[in-house]
Amino acid sequence: MSESSKPVAGILMGSDSDWPTMKAAAEALKEFGIASEARVISAHRDPRGLEEYVGSAARRGLRCIIAGAGGAAHLPGVAAALTWLPVIGVPIESKSLKGLDSLLSIVQMPPGVPVATVGIGAARNAGILAAQILSAGEPRLEKALKEFKERLAMESRAKNKNLK
Amino acid sequence: MSESSKPVAGILMGSDSDWPTMKAAAEALKEFGIASEARVISAHRDPRGLEEYVGSAARRGLRCIIAGAGGAAHLPGVAAALTWLPVIGVPIESKSLKGLDSLLSIVQMPPGVPVATVGIGAARNAGILAAQILSAGEPRLEKALKEFKERLAMESRAKNKNLK
Amino acid sequence: MSESSKPVAGILMGSDSDWPTMKAAAEALKEFGIASEARVISAHRDPRGLEEYVGSAARRGLRCIIAGAGGAAHLPGVAAALTWLPVIGVPIESKSLKGLDSLLSIVQMPPGVPVATVGIGAARNAGILAAQILSAGEPRLEKALKEFKERLAMESRAKNKNLK
Amino acid sequence: MSESSKPVAGILMGSDSDWPTMKAAAEALKEFGIASEARVISAHRDPRGLEEYVGSAARRGLRCIIAGAGGAAHLPGVAAALTWLPVIGVPIESKSLKGLDSLLSIVQMPPGVPVATVGIGAARNAGILAAQILSAGEPRLEKALKEFKERLAMESRAKNKNLK
Amino acid sequence: MSESSKPVAGILMGSDSDWPTMKAAAEALKEFGIASEARVISAHRDPRGLEEYVGSAARRGLRCIIAGAGGAAHLPGVAAALTWLPVIGVPIESKSLKGLDSLLSIVQMPPGVPVATVGIGAARNAGILAAQILSAGEPRLEKALKEFKERLAMESRAKNKNLK
Amino acid sequence: MSESSKPVAGILMGSDSDWPTMKAAAEALKEFGIASEARVISAHRDPRGLEEYVGSAARRGLRCIIAGAGGAAHLPGVAAALTWLPVIGVPIESKSLKGLDSLLSIVQMPPGVPVATVGIGAARNAGILAAQILSAGEPRLEKALKEFKERLAMESRAKNKNLK
Amino acid sequence: MSESSKPVAGILMGSDSDWPTMKAAAEALKEFGIASEARVISAHRDPRGLEEYVGSAARRGLRCIIAGAGGAAHLPGVAAALTWLPVIGVPIESKSLKGLDSLLSIVQMPPGVPVATVGIGAARNAGILAAQILSAGEPRLEKALKEFKERLAMESRAKNKNLK
Amino acid sequence: MSESSKPVAGILMGSDSDWPTMKAAAEALKEFGIASEARVISAHRDPRGLEEYVGSAARRGLRCIIAGAGGAAHLPGVAAALTWLPVIGVPIESKSLKGLDSLLSIVQMPPGVPVATVGIGAARNAGILAAQILSAGEPRLEKALKEFKERLAMESRAKNKNLK
Repeated sequence: MSESSKPVAGILMGSDSDWPTMKAAAEALKEFGIASEARVISAHRDPRGLEEYVGSAARRGLRCIIAGAGGAAHLPGVAAALTWLPVIGVPIESKSLKGLDSLLSIVQMPPGVPVATVGIGAARNAGILAAQILSAGEPRLEKALKEFKERLAMESRAKNKNLK
Repeated sequence: MSESSKPVAGILMGSDSDWPTMKAAAEALKEFGIASEARVISAHRDPRGLEEYVGSAARRGLRCIIAGAGGAAHLPGVAAALTWLPVIGVPIESKSLKGLDSLLSIVQMPPGVPVATVGIGAARNAGILAAQILSAGEPRLEKALKEFKERLAMESRAKNKNLK
Repeated sequence: MSESSKPVAGILMGSDSDWPTMKAAAEALKEFGIASEARVISAHRDPRGLEEYVGSAARRGLRCIIAGAGGAAHLPGVAAALTWLPVIGVPIESKSLKGLDSLLSIVQMPPGVPVATVGIGAARNAGILAAQILSAGEPRLEKALKEFKERLAMESRAKNKNLK
Repeated sequence: MSESSKPVAGILMGSDSDWPTMKAAAEALKEFGIASEARVISAHRDPRGLEEYVGSAARRGLRCIIAGAGGAAHLPGVAAALTWLPVIGVPIESKSLKGLDSLLSIVQMPPGVPVATVGIGAARNAGILAAQILSAGEPRLEKALKEFKERLAMESRAKNKNLK
Repeated sequence: MSESSKPVAGILMGSDSDWPTMKAAAEALKEFGIASEARVISAHRDPRGLEEYVGSAARRGLRCIIAGAGGAAHLPGVAAALTWLPVIGVPIESKSLKGLDSLLSIVQMPPGVPVATVGIGAARNAGILAAQILSAGEPRLEKALKEFKERLAMESRAKNKNLK
Repeated sequence: MSESSKPVAGILMGSDSDWPTMKAAAEALKEFGIASEARVISAHRDPRGLEEYVGSAARRGLRCIIAGAGGAAHLPGVAAALTWLPVIGVPIESKSLKGLDSLLSIVQMPPGVPVATVGIGAARNAGILAAQILSAGEPRLEKALKEFKERLAMESRAKNKNLK
Repeated sequence: MSESSKPVAGILMGSDSDWPTMKAAAEALKEFGIASEARVISAHRDPRGLEEYVGSAARRGLRCIIAGAGGAAHLPGVAAALTWLPVIGVPIESKSLKGLDSLLSIVQMPPGVPVATVGIGAARNAGILAAQILSAGEPRLEKALKEFKERLAMESRAKNKNLK
Repeated sequence: MSESSKPVAGILMGSDSDWPTMKAAAEALKEFGIASEARVISAHRDPRGLEEYVGSAARRGLRCIIAGAGGAAHLPGVAAALTWLPVIGVPIESKSLKGLDSLLSIVQMPPGVPVATVGIGAARNAGILAAQILSAGEPRLEKALKEFKERLAMESRAKNKNLK
């Protein structure tokens, strides 16, 4: 996949209050030269808008969906119900139960409709996972991911100087 | 509301394996002379079928929806998103987490889209709650509910003879 | 139901410290033109006052009860024991266990005595659920609920402009 | 307190299905020569029967109440609201959540109305705790409790022979 | 029991950092005219000091023990192992798990050695429970407890003025 | 991707006791005509074998890894540390904590190293997710996934006949 | 440390019903040629017996203690309070809460008194950990542990033949 | 073991952000005159660095490893997989789940590969446990540990003066 401005990943969230968390997914994708688009579409407040967006996602050229939601977090699962594209779910930390509700609402999907769930609040990891998924047959991305992992190791080692 | 065969409550479940639990809702409604209809409509496997059923529920004369689901239990919440009728959610006991996931996935709904949640596996209570909701301006139902509560007290007292 | 000043919903709480949470229920009801009354009646500190209030609620014209409580949250369940009106329970976030105790104390009711439970701290949703319950045979309320749901969708879409 | 047939402890439970658990409390009391009476009185199905029983308990000579309940377990807390006698709560193991709901519903009481909570299903310990409470100024009971503790130690030591 | 300065209740805690929580027990006892003494005795750091204190408690005139502890909270259980006096356990809110660890460590005692557990951080309730326990055969205390309960109801009702 | 016998997905598990769960992943892949290989490689008992297998996975033509583990479930995370291929984690139900430990050990990965986590025991969903990931630029798979989703809806509807 | 019949590890449990779990610790020690002794000593029922045993453990030649307990599991922590020897704690699976209570009661020890906690029911691992601790300056044990780890890897690999 | 500057304990952590917690382990070791070395080595970002460090630890003279990690906390378990030295695991408090995830990821290890787990955030206890482990056959350390325990008791008693 060459770098381009045409989005191949859709980033969904139920409210703009999730954006401070979810933008880390957009940023991670950008680091890998992957264009994305972000949308507020609540599964509960705008179910028809969600069906419209996700139902046409593959036709419009999207190749994966990242969806973040908190509490009774239905957005990723409902998106997964509406498309055969892989859907990555990000449990948003909720006020009282700290995201345990969000996590269970996203990960415990029934047979036939998986959601690729990452950790609570882990939108950056959702972006990296999307890059891994999109790297198939993409030598440029494959190379970028290898370098990324090497950089992780180097950065980890460099932190030793902060222990003094 | 006079007794009739025209359903006023819809009972939804994601799979026929939930029926042994959910039929207690139908039975409770029947005890109060309330006709209901039961449907398997998975929010995840048949999202468009769900929209069709729930979106037309009020027009077809339904006055409340009872929905049971387990795990990442989205059915009650997605139904609530599609209608202004009251939706009662029944968390079905799940295999590993015993319904804690089902409960949190159903009860922790975002502002604007409530689900009236009952206990884990408590389909009978969902039916009784529906009867309470439907009793407004229905002297027959009101009377039946009062008698029902008196019967509960009498039955509770009668159990004392089993303590010997 | 025409708009009037005669309360049709009673809002109960165990302590005035729950009022900052619970007033969202009163406000939601007011948005739908439904009059309500609020009372502090502790199930534990004033059990006889609770019996008096709830036992006479239907006679006085109330058609549903909203009850909020935290910790070993008995208020909604005890209210449900004392009336055949539908009771909506609001688990108040507790200090140490963040409302998980409140939620389980309210939702896990025994057969025969349901409480329509909403999410932790979700008093606004309790008010909306009450409006849904009270809308039966009330064209004005039905219309207001339909418009409310359309407004939710529009507001959700409007939030997209905040993603930049 | 001399041994007598006049009950000084009341053992309450919400259903006769709790009796196989709760009778261990009666047996423990009997080992200490303390007469008790057992009653099925559901806080949810027979709230007025509960008020009548507990409200007159002290007058009738009871000196403590043991109450067992499961799920949204309100019986011990509601009993504690209705009397100044000490109330011992026994969380009964529930079907789905295994008594975690029962425990939290009983122990997390608000200021002013304590329940002396024992472990999940620990009705025998409730009986022993009642004996400890009733032993004040009762040399016979005091002596019995001392001997009981010595017997516990001896029995514990005797179990070593089973390790081979 | 007449009011006196000779302590009849011992209040134990594992660290002086628990005192801000535990002093509410001493204050509640004082409201009922019951003298108490407070001690820091860690079950883990000073096991022999604990044995000495609790082992001689009954001889020195104490009639119940209140013990607060957090985390792997062993103090109440170990105290209960060392005396036949009733032991009231107060789970102190812990830093990470917010007292769920403290609660389970205190309440889930094995057969033979009960601890009368109150809610997380509920030291005031521990004091009130101690007063209830000590009231047996004490008309003065009995009367004070009855008045206390009436005061609770009145205070609860008075809070209604704060809802405006 | 044409159907072939050369594995493109590796299925890892820590013990052969996980195979009854994990073979559902192999079966799902086979339904989509995707060849896979299964290996027992414990992250804890054979860390060097794991490094060897995963470190060479991409070179050997694998395009994704499915890893199942229970308890302190490190296999998926350690595999993800060793390759830039997408890794799908399956939390295996554990004996005491029923897979809650497995789930948290797999999903809560640190920034930089995501694991695409599915539900507890949901190996079939892991296989389907792998098919979705591998479908990029593969018209045959894309078509198969669309048909699969239509089949899910039809099967869901067909279950209605079992409600009688 | 040469093989001998003089015990260097003490295995404690609160009841003989824990022995089917705990004997795996004795067996693991025996595999490494380490003699151990097993005792039933309840922290709650025989506190003075525990003090006697643990207080003299080092003098009698023991070099570490393994203690298993369930529920409000105080045995490992109380043992750790009574000796400067390393104490390994084994949370025994409990009836209702499945060992979550046991785990938290053992692992969450206060500063100054650590317990080396292993997994729920993991008595075999407790024995292996004891062997690792005792191996310091013991070339025979060091060698045995190295061989043990190699055997683990080989056994793990051999399980692949069971995947067909 | 005489005091020396050659490290005998290695303190590992996944990130320098864990150092404020983990340095308490180094400080505790220093109090006992035990030299340690601290390293940032992420199991997930630098798996080969970890293998190198732990695989050579025994040869370089280390006699135990202390490893702290949070969330899907694999560092202690992976270290334990790579050496026969005893590994002490410190669950670091995580942002959303407060260390419950860290604890379960560390303690629930499979048979054959134990991690000696201490409480959430309890790095000081990890250092003390290491001292207990290293004290075998070291009269100086044994004496220091005995004095340390006596000091704990004295300090505990001294805190009584703060209760006034």
